Amino acid sequence: MRRRTTKNGKAPMLKVIPIGGLNEIGKNMTLLEFDNQILIIDCGMSFPEDEMYGIDIVIPDFTYLIENREKIVGMIITHGHEDHIGAIPYLLRHVKIPVYGTRLTLGLVGNKLKEHQVVGDLRTIEAGDKIKLGCFNIETIRTTHSIADAICLAIDTPAGMIFHSGDFKIDYTPVDGEPIDFSKLAELGKKGVTLMLCDSTNAVRQGFTASEKVVGETIENIFRTAKTRIIIATFSSNVHRVQKIIENAVKMGRKVAISGRSMENVVALAIELGYLNIPEGTLVDLKMTRNIPDDKLVIITTGSQGEPMSALSRIASGEHRSVKLKKGDMVILSSTPVPGNEKTVSNVVNKLFEKGAEVIYSDIADIHVSGHACQEELKLLHSLIKPKFFMPVHGEYRHLIQHARLAESLGMSRDNIFVLENGDILSVNKRKASLSETHVEADAILVDGLGVGDVGNIVLRDRKLLSESGLIIVVAAIEKESQTVVSGPDVISRGFVYVRENEHLMDEARRVAEEALERCQKKKIKDWNNMKSQVRDSLGSYIYGATKRSPIILPIFLEV
Amino acid sequence: MRRRTTKNGKAPMLKVIPIGGLNEIGKNMTLLEFDNQILIIDCGMSFPEDEMYGIDIVIPDFTYLIENREKIVGMIITHGHEDHIGAIPYLLRHVKIPVYGTRLTLGLVGNKLKEHQVVGDLRTIEAGDKIKLGCFNIETIRTTHSIADAICLAIDTPAGMIFHSGDFKIDYTPVDGEPIDFSKLAELGKKGVTLMLCDSTNAVRQGFTASEKVVGETIENIFRTAKTRIIIATFSSNVHRVQKIIENAVKMGRKVAISGRSMENVVALAIELGYLNIPEGTLVDLKMTRNIPDDKLVIITTGSQGEPMSALSRIASGEHRSVKLKKGDMVILSSTPVPGNEKTVSNVVNKLFEKGAEVIYSDIADIHVSGHACQEELKLLHSLIKPKFFMPVHGEYRHLIQHARLAESLGMSRDNIFVLENGDILSVNKRKASLSETHVEADAILVDGLGVGDVGNIVLRDRKLLSESGLIIVVAAIEKESQTVVSGPDVISRGFVYVRENEHLMDEARRVAEEALERCQKKKIKDWNNMKSQVRDSLGSYIYGATKRSPIILPIFLEV
Repeated sequence: MRRRTTKNGKAPMLKVIPIGGLNEIGKNMTLLEFDNQILIIDCGMSFPEDEMYGIDIVIPDFTYLIENREKIVGMIITHGHEDHIGAIPYLLRHVKIPVYGTRLTLGLVGNKLKEHQVVGDLRTIEAGDKIKLGCFNIETIRTTHSIADAICLAIDTPAGMIFHSGDFKIDYTPVDGEPIDFSKLAELGKKGVTLMLCDSTNAVRQGFTASEKVVGETIENIFRTAKTRIIIATFSSNVHRVQKIIENAVKMGRKVAISGRSMENVVALAIELGYLNIPEGTLVDLKMTRNIPDDKLVIITTGSQGEPMSALSRIASGEHRSVKLKKGDMVILSSTPVPGNEKTVSNVVNKLFEKGAEVIYSDIADIHVSGHACQEELKLLHSLIKPKFFMPVHGEYRHLIQHARLAESLGMSRDNIFVLENGDILSVNKRKASLSETHVEADAILVDGLGVGDVGNIVLRDRKLLSESGLIIVVAAIEKESQTVVSGPDVISRGFVYVRENEHLMDEARRVAEEALERCQKKKIKDWNNMKSQVRDSLGSYIYGATKRSPIILPIFLEV
Repeated sequence: MRRRTTKNGKAPMLKVIPIGGLNEIGKNMTLLEFDNQILIIDCGMSFPEDEMYGIDIVIPDFTYLIENREKIVGMIITHGHEDHIGAIPYLLRHVKIPVYGTRLTLGLVGNKLKEHQVVGDLRTIEAGDKIKLGCFNIETIRTTHSIADAICLAIDTPAGMIFHSGDFKIDYTPVDGEPIDFSKLAELGKKGVTLMLCDSTNAVRQGFTASEKVVGETIENIFRTAKTRIIIATFSSNVHRVQKIIENAVKMGRKVAISGRSMENVVALAIELGYLNIPEGTLVDLKMTRNIPDDKLVIITTGSQGEPMSALSRIASGEHRSVKLKKGDMVILSSTPVPGNEKTVSNVVNKLFEKGAEVIYSDIADIHVSGHACQEELKLLHSLIKPKFFMPVHGEYRHLIQHARLAESLGMSRDNIFVLENGDILSVNKRKASLSETHVEADAILVDGLGVGDVGNIVLRDRKLLSESGLIIVVAAIEKESQTVVSGPDVISRGFVYVRENEHLMDEARRVAEEALERCQKKKIKDWNNMKSQVRDSLGSYIYGATKRSPIILPIFLEV
């Protein structure tokens, strides 16, 4: 298992390279490369970690792709979630390539490109279609996930058949009636699959992920008994769930209003593309809901992850322009917190309860199901595909390890399982597979505003220090000829203490800086760098002694 | 239910005031006040929220206690967890009062006071003891929790009997063989309890919390099969679990070494006070473990919450001085992540797996149990105590609401249940209870280094802004007479962009600042505040246009 290297044979090898996904391996992007031809699978973004101060999103490192842009034959997208499409505009700024995907997926990609003012060559396919990109013969296969129109990929290459699961769960009763194409998967397995790349998100969870139908039933039960206004938050991309909410609203004679920009956009797109089926007269403008009785209204909104600027957060804190919470309003969070969001979600839930709303969330009811396969589903897929080699992807390292063990427990040889990290290269053909000793650049690229990759470790370290104790600036004007201080030092702080209530401390700080400069003059120290470090050291120890804090201390001298 | 106010009757009323606990109500401290006598129950700290940049801990607001210090008859502590004892040194700096608690609890308090160099009047009691503090006749009752020597309280007051559950679970098979004192609770219920305050932490969880024994069994199974070194992380205060780990180590012929300052301190204290029973020759110094074969060693360590500076984090990142991870080492995290810590814990788990360790954590095995009662246990306590009035405490608002509903489901009248927020006052006697219209100051007090409460919203807002986009400083020296710029403007940034790679941007920024100052001179603007805001506005829009970022812009002028 993992990290072994064997000698390359003579038969040509396919390279498989997971890139991007922060802590999750191959989540955002995977490359297949054979004979100077590169196929890109997905191109998504991640959300920043806590320590990535001020960073908006994180995208994969495109260095390798840009350097090898001539080799790229195209990109295929498995589904329309942000972590699989979110970085496309950033890549298309550098390379002109065709992008293949199903209708809903490309609809979402198209919106994104428009937003970024990037032109793309989008080519719509349907699940089941076969496309040829260079030496890669791709068959797209219907799968089920928490977004409509998801596919998995059977990619026939000169080095063997590669199966890529995409993100998936096995939902026997999906809302759109289009279950995973088992017969195709079985057929593939029978023909022989050289390598499988498979979603590992839920590899530590036992059992089966419940069908989306379960959520539909919970929603139905809640709607049937509710006598007040219903506000329901969910992921805008989960078109199937939105469909179920609308169906139940219609059944109970309720109108539906949409709140939140991304929900508005996705609903509009899904209606246009025919993924949402809404009887005429059902949708009403949010601003026009005042005259609709509470028990005749459902508001569908974003913010189920407690995102601070989302519609639901604004509703909870009383800052939403059109929706004022009333006592007794029923608020449903149709989601479970994504790891890292637990606290923001419970803060929103607490606020809603405090305002007198009835709140239903995942701790209380079966109001969400995962979009990813649990252990029993993974076993089923492994048993259908029966690959010769296996590479768990889409998960943190701990998930991949667990998934590797699951494969072993099904009888696969440990030597045929490869746990990679982002940037690692697996070389594979029908006979053998091995990890290369070379790597591809795969550091997380941080996006802050318009800047892509211009915020690195030094800037992040400064932001961290600034956030912990703020900074103190010491400014002085120094006379050119005599090198004496003619004005200042002045001491200014930000994020350190509340200055008005700590005048004594700030006065003392000024005095300490002044003394440090006087000492420099007595010692005839005239080198500014030396003078600055004298000020920094003296003031630093004074401040630490007085407060046990270590703000950044920044001496600035002006020559006059 | 909640927030109703009725007219006070003439019989004297007891005031019950939850204070402190950040989002959790009455978690850190609760006050009982009758006839100018105040009893303090617990005095703990909370850990800061994400947005509380640079804050070390959060303590309750002591304003009311300090203003009424003459009324305080004493403090009683239910158990030795940080969220119930952590703020004691801060209070004892202001008021001299006796502090009552069981042996282990006061042992931990004593350590804390030493650390803070505060002298306290600590008075040791045993579970079952009765003490009289002013008009409060307190009977302490053995209960079970995730720390040894926990008690709950029956407080007889002139206004009626108050029962305070403390933090608890119902463990029929605790490690120390001292189960909760059911007969005493039943007797209390029979005599009649006016008001119950009860732990609500797990009020949304169905069923029963498993016994600590379950964890003991899991540990036994792991230890029995392990053939390599075992490193096990848990909460230092969970003395019972530490005992179980040591017993199993002894059984398998392993030596035990301790790593991490708080684990060393608590183990030393628990041995001294007789809470830990360790056969001679079992404990070895961590530095002396090199000669012990891997299969003969267990290292008990802190860091089960993934705390960045903890022993386990340092082991995982290869920075621990005495413990270097080896391939095959078995690492056990005997804990579940506290809400908010999910990501830090999984980061540590990933690092351990990447280093080739075998990692066992809560997703994989029953290696932790909660210390708090789930719904069925709460029902049992309610049914034993049968209080007239009920006030859920120790939980977020959503937990209290759920606990209130549980009480209702057991037949309690909604009018007799009171969900308070911190600082609210419940007035109660045997006949009636009502929420006062007055409040006690109960804002969270932020501690940063030595500063208690000197970091407020303004400083926090600055730290947040600084952490998001850094800052740009514009310095200029201005001649007194002519009010002309004689030196600068210089532009310095921190946490904004990596300056070396963005020279053009910084040059432009300087030019924009210079032009703004020139415009001021042309317009004969000589008011410094006006000049500064011109600089701030011009530079702000230039920077936003070029980068879509909004760093703090800080113009500083020196008069020469």
